[in-house]
Amino acid sequence: MANVTLSVCTTCRRTAGGAPCEEEPRPGARMLAALEAHALPEGVTLRPVECLSACSRGCSIALSGGARRWSYVYGDLDPDAHVDAILTGVTAYAATSDGLVPWRARPEVFRKQSVARIPPQE
Amino acid sequence: MANVTLSVCTTCRRTAGGAPCEEEPRPGARMLAALEAHALPEGVTLRPVECLSACSRGCSIALSGGARRWSYVYGDLDPDAHVDAILTGVTAYAATSDGLVPWRARPEVFRKQSVARIPPQE
Repeated sequence: MANVTLSVCTTCRRTAGGAPCEEEPRPGARMLAALEAHALPEGVTLRPVECLSACSRGCSIALSGGARRWSYVYGDLDPDAHVDAILTGVTAYAATSDGLVPWRARPEVFRKQSVARIPPQE
Repeated sequence: MANVTLSVCTTCRRTAGGAPCEEEPRPGARMLAALEAHALPEGVTLRPVECLSACSRGCSIALSGGARRWSYVYGDLDPDAHVDAILTGVTAYAATSDGLVPWRARPEVFRKQSVARIPPQE
């Protein structure tokens, strides 16, 4: 399974869907740092990205994993509150072959804060 | 270039970000039918999808094109107003190798109504 990429928008200026802020480092950069401070599941690579084009839904992340998995974008995330849930969700995603995690096995932030999903390329 | 997939959410209940409606066929199904009625650019395949998980931003579509292209999701689309713009945008996307169409070459609905984008898998 695995070979999964967890993309993190480092330019997000919002936290949990709030108003854009001028703080530095930006919430997106803080999200990346918070995730870097944790061990990732085997086969999962963290990738900083400048803008996932979900600016009104920051902080935002994307999960992708090859041509046979659905890709997902999640938003309204908070680097101070949601890192454990993100890691739980990525672990479940990485354990699938198609990216489809059963609804009940998804952390609440993944169930409620999906921005979009894209079908597999194959 | 090409080998691009234009995924269309057929279950979207909204048009152009409005209130969800009960009309049948659903706006998403009408979007699919409207696109099917047009010739697509060479190398572009239309794919109906049940839910792109962008329900509050319907009608929604996604563009993807192999492991080396960025993928994009667009929303707040109207099957009666935006088909020509979508075809223009898909044509430009299909002509790239990485999915990155210069800003000025994107139709206005693609500039203003991006829901999210996901980086290439390679």
